[in-house]
Formats: sequence, C-alpha cells, structure tokens
Amino acid sequence: MEDLSDNLRRYVEMIERAWWERLKSREPSPTLYEPIKDILGRGGKRLRPCLCMLSCEFVGGDAADALPTALGIELFHNFSLVHDDIEDGSRLRRGQPTLHIKYGLPVAVNAGDALFALCFDVLCENERLLGVERAWRIFREIAALSVTLAEGQALDILFKQTMRMSVEDVIEILHKKTARLFAVSAKCGAIAGGAPDDITSKLGNAWEHIGIAFQIRDDVLNLKGSEEEYGKRIGEDIYEGKPTLIIVHCLARCNASERREIMKCLGNYDKEAIENAIRIFEKHHSIEYAEKCAEKYLQEGLKILNKTEGNEEMRQNMIALAEFFVERMK
Amino acid sequence: MEDLSDNLRRYVEMIERAWWERLKSREPSPTLYEPIKDILGRGGKRLRPCLCMLSCEFVGGDAADALPTALGIELFHNFSLVHDDIEDGSRLRRGQPTLHIKYGLPVAVNAGDALFALCFDVLCENERLLGVERAWRIFREIAALSVTLAEGQALDILFKQTMRMSVEDVIEILHKKTARLFAVSAKCGAIAGGAPDDITSKLGNAWEHIGIAFQIRDDVLNLKGSEEEYGKRIGEDIYEGKPTLIIVHCLARCNASERREIMKCLGNYDKEAIENAIRIFEKHHSIEYAEKCAEKYLQEGLKILNKTEGNEEMRQNMIALAEFFVERMK
Repeated sequence: MEDLSDNLRRYVEMIERAWWERLKSREPSPTLYEPIKDILGRGGKRLRPCLCMLSCEFVGGDAADALPTALGIELFHNFSLVHDDIEDGSRLRRGQPTLHIKYGLPVAVNAGDALFALCFDVLCENERLLGVERAWRIFREIAALSVTLAEGQALDILFKQTMRMSVEDVIEILHKKTARLFAVSAKCGAIAGGAPDDITSKLGNAWEHIGIAFQIRDDVLNLKGSEEEYGKRIGEDIYEGKPTLIIVHCLARCNASERREIMKCLGNYDKEAIENAIRIFEKHHSIEYAEKCAEKYLQEGLKILNKTEGNEEMRQNMIALAEFFVERMK
Repeated sequence: MEDLSDNLRRYVEMIERAWWERLKSREPSPTLYEPIKDILGRGGKRLRPCLCMLSCEFVGGDAADALPTALGIELFHNFSLVHDDIEDGSRLRRGQPTLHIKYGLPVAVNAGDALFALCFDVLCENERLLGVERAWRIFREIAALSVTLAEGQALDILFKQTMRMSVEDVIEILHKKTARLFAVSAKCGAIAGGAPDDITSKLGNAWEHIGIAFQIRDDVLNLKGSEEEYGKRIGEDIYEGKPTLIIVHCLARCNASERREIMKCLGNYDKEAIENAIRIFEKHHSIEYAEKCAEKYLQEGLKILNKTEGNEEMRQNMIALAEFFVERMK
C-alpha cells in the first residue's frame, strides 16, 4: 500500500503539472479557461489517469509515455461531470457549486465542450511520443468510449423521465457511464506501454468489472456516507431520480404506498423523506443486494487481473488500487 | 452552375444515405437517436460536407474517399448548432423548435455531446479507407478545430454578458466560430484526396476567407431577409445579443439614446423595437459596412482559390459554390 501511495502521488504530480503547463499557454478567459481551471483544480483522486499510468507500467512501459493519454482521460472525465451536473440539475460538485450554478448555463455547456475538445487535442501529442500507429489506437478507444457514454447518459435520462427500468438496464448504464471509462483508461495505458492486444484486452476486461463495483459502492456511499467526505448531499441520487441498482431493486419489490414514499424525494430535497426512503431500501435488503453485487464484480475483476501477465509489483499496486477504489469506507 | 448543382445533389445523396445507414444500426432511443435523427433530418444545404467532397475532387481524389470525413463534419456542425441554441436560448432552428425546447435540456445537451462523439467515431472509418497516416491528419485538424470553436463560443458568451467588443474581436469570433470550420472542411477533403501540404493549406486559407464572408452575409440576412427563407426570426441576432459586425460597428458610433434603443431589443422580442434598431444601424451605415467587409473577404478568398493548383472544372464549381454561399439573396 505504501508503494501504491508513492506511485499515485508521483502520477498525480505529473498529471497536474502537465495540465497547468498546457493551460498556461492558453489566453486567460473569464468565460472559458477560468471555469476550466476551477473544475480541474478542485482535486479529486485522479483515479482514472492514475489507472492509465499504472497500467502502462504494469505492461513494462514508462509512465511518461502514458501522460498525454492520462491527461486526456481526466479532461474527458471532467467534461462528463460538468454536463452530467447540468443534466441532473446538481448543485454541488466536490463540495463547491457546480459550474452551471457558479458561471451560468451557457458558460458551463461550453466549458464542458471545451474539456471534451481538449481531451482530443492533448491526444494529438501522442503522435510524437508513441508514433502514429499507437496514437491512432488510443484515439479510436476514446472516440468509441465517447459514443458509449452518451448512450449511457441517454438511458439515465430515460429512467428519470419514466422511473421504470430493470436491474439489467441499470447494469447496462453502469457499463456505459462508468465501467467503460475505467476499462479504456487501463487499455490505453497498456497501448501506450506497448502491450500486445491480448494483454490490453484482459486489462480492459478486469477494469470493466472493477469499474462496475466502484460505481455501485459509490451509490451505496451516497446513502450511507457523510456529506463532508462525499462532497455531495446524502440521498442526492434519490432526489435526482438516478437509476441506481438500489432504487431499481427496491422499486421492483416495494408496495404502492412505499413507492409513493420514495417518489416524494424526487426533485424535493427533504431530509426526513430521504431517511424514510433509506429505511424502505433497508427493509427490502436493496443496499445489501447492491453491496453483494459490488463484491462479486470486484472479485471477478481481481481474478482476471491476477491471470494477466505483467509486472508483479505493479500488479500488487493495481490490486491495492482496486480495493482502495471499492472498499473505501466499507 | 448546372455542374455545381449536379455535383451538390450527388454529394448530398451520398452523405444522407451514409448516415441513415449508420444510424439504422444504432438502437432506437427516444432520448438519444430520435432527437439526433430529428436534427439531422431537418435538411439544410449541407454546405460544409459538400465543400469537403468538392475539395477532395478538386485535388484529384474520389469524392467517396472524403465521405466519412464529410459525414463527421456535418455531425460536428450539428453538435455546435444544438449547443449554441441552448447557450443562446434560441427557440427555432430550421423553422422548427430547437432540441432543448422540443425534448428538454438534459436530452439536448446529451444529444449534442453524442453528435460530437459520433463525429470522431465516424472519422475512425478513415483508417480502412485512407490508411492510418491520412486518417490521423484529418483527426488532428478536427481536434484542433473543436478547441477553437469552444474558444470562439466563449468570446460570443462574453459579449452577451458585457456588450463591449471591438471590430477585431468580432473578426476573431468569425474566424473561430465559422470560418475555421469551412477551412477545415476544405483541408480535410484535400487530405482525403491525397493533396500535398501546400495545396491543402492554400485551400484552407481560401475557405477561411470565404467562411468569414459567408457569416457576415448570414448576419445581414438576419436583418434584411424573410423569416420563411431564413428559418429564424428576423432580428433574432439583436434579441440574443449576438456579436455581429453590424451591431459592434453601430455601438461604436451611435449616441447614448440610440444605444438605449438598441438595448431594448435584448431578451425582448418586440418587432417595433427591432425595426427601430435596424433603422439606427442603417443611419450609421453599419449594414453597408458589413456588406463591404463580406465582399472584401469573398474576393480575397477567390483570389487565393484561383491561384491554387487543381482540377479546372472543380475550381469553377468551387467558385460557384462560394458565390452561391455568399451572394444568395444579395
């Protein structure tokens, strides 16, 4: 775990230094680079770019070779946060007002677009670093991911409109909105590190599973964690009508009056109503069910990871990262 | 002109067939592919993808080689329309309600993101068609363009917040928001057609100029055209506080009471106030000034085009296209 911490610190420093250098050369602009610097500067664990760099070292590459890719992935992730917050009407992100609340809707929509664009722009640096063949393969992964993400988000919006969805639909959303980005982070790190196709694809598969586990745990934390640690109001997911495994599992089991109780939380942030909804979830063992699912996906991911050829020290780091991801606060 | 029409019809058929084929394979979704089909199906002249294909044939390539690129460019253009409409609070697009009015804000933000993503996704097809080197060069052009566009949009938003801007600032916005997309359409068509760098860059330069002329003419039409032909309300630009050459030229010359009269149109669509503002523009020769600017840029663009080596018939087609672009309704 100490090695992991050292490595992560090194990666985070590389990533943060790299983008401040790049942003420095852009003309300061109150309606563009200021909100971009704001959101990028709010911290966060940088899990996805760290995974990308760790994956590169796991296959025997140099972390620096994965740097533009890791940067692109963090920019992409931030693009999706900014637009998701608009679409969900969220008011807080990492303990501060979301961009559309702080800078207004037009600036926030455009800042999100710019983060998306800057992701592809920074991927252009891979040509010089990795040669055009590898650079192109990384670009292709991220282009496909971006379509998948929009499809996942569309399903998410559909649930909010209808409040009808199966557990399978939720799993599809988890794949498209969260897990694929973890998978692509791991795969692109491996491509940057020069891994053969089968190793790249195994790493992707492992982190696709771990990514699902991560998101389910995150949804559990939104009900059981503390606001300060989480940076988002407790029960915000219920208030937003987010399609989590927990709510969908519960809605399929509860009676009409319980359903009405849960629905009272939608678009109305009332602590008592939310506590009540959580009690209904507990009654139907929906949180327990979600935690078991997360554990199953985590174990499956670790199993694949253990069978993938690579640097032993980095494998231990990756396992520690996965457990840290998923187990935090358990 | 007849050749041009025949060619354009052929290009438009290729483009529209190509994307219906691609969209057919995507799962139907009321919150994603339905709004996407809606906006793509509203017609429009497909000027940018046609330019891309024409440019490919001008340098001696086969239009089919530019097809995924042309498709990507039209998808990119539609992404920017959908998000611009949100940012500007526009209610009509091509004579119908804008996507955020018709489907709600979350669906529209996400559909725009999906169009952006689908642009890069379709560019991946270039690998098989053109080889990875040319495919990569085209990707690079569009990645850089997408950052430029967001920067232009941020300046546009800034003007709406402050209503202070110089003519030079407006020209910068015209470059970033409109002309660069024309330039990149021409350049990418040339790259797909296998043109050497100097020809590619001359074509880009020519269409950067013509693109400026096009947008200025479009802004004039918003004041002098008819609503049916234009598909947008007359004077909508003044109502939205759009930074056009006309308004910025006039604000620098009018007195305080005239400024107040113009400001009355902002966010308040009142026909009389808009007619009054147009009279003030005319008094200060601001519309005349804009038309002269457009003519200057058009002539400069045509001069460069005439000096660029390429197929003579296609050059005549390109000149006709430029004149059609800019001169329509003059």
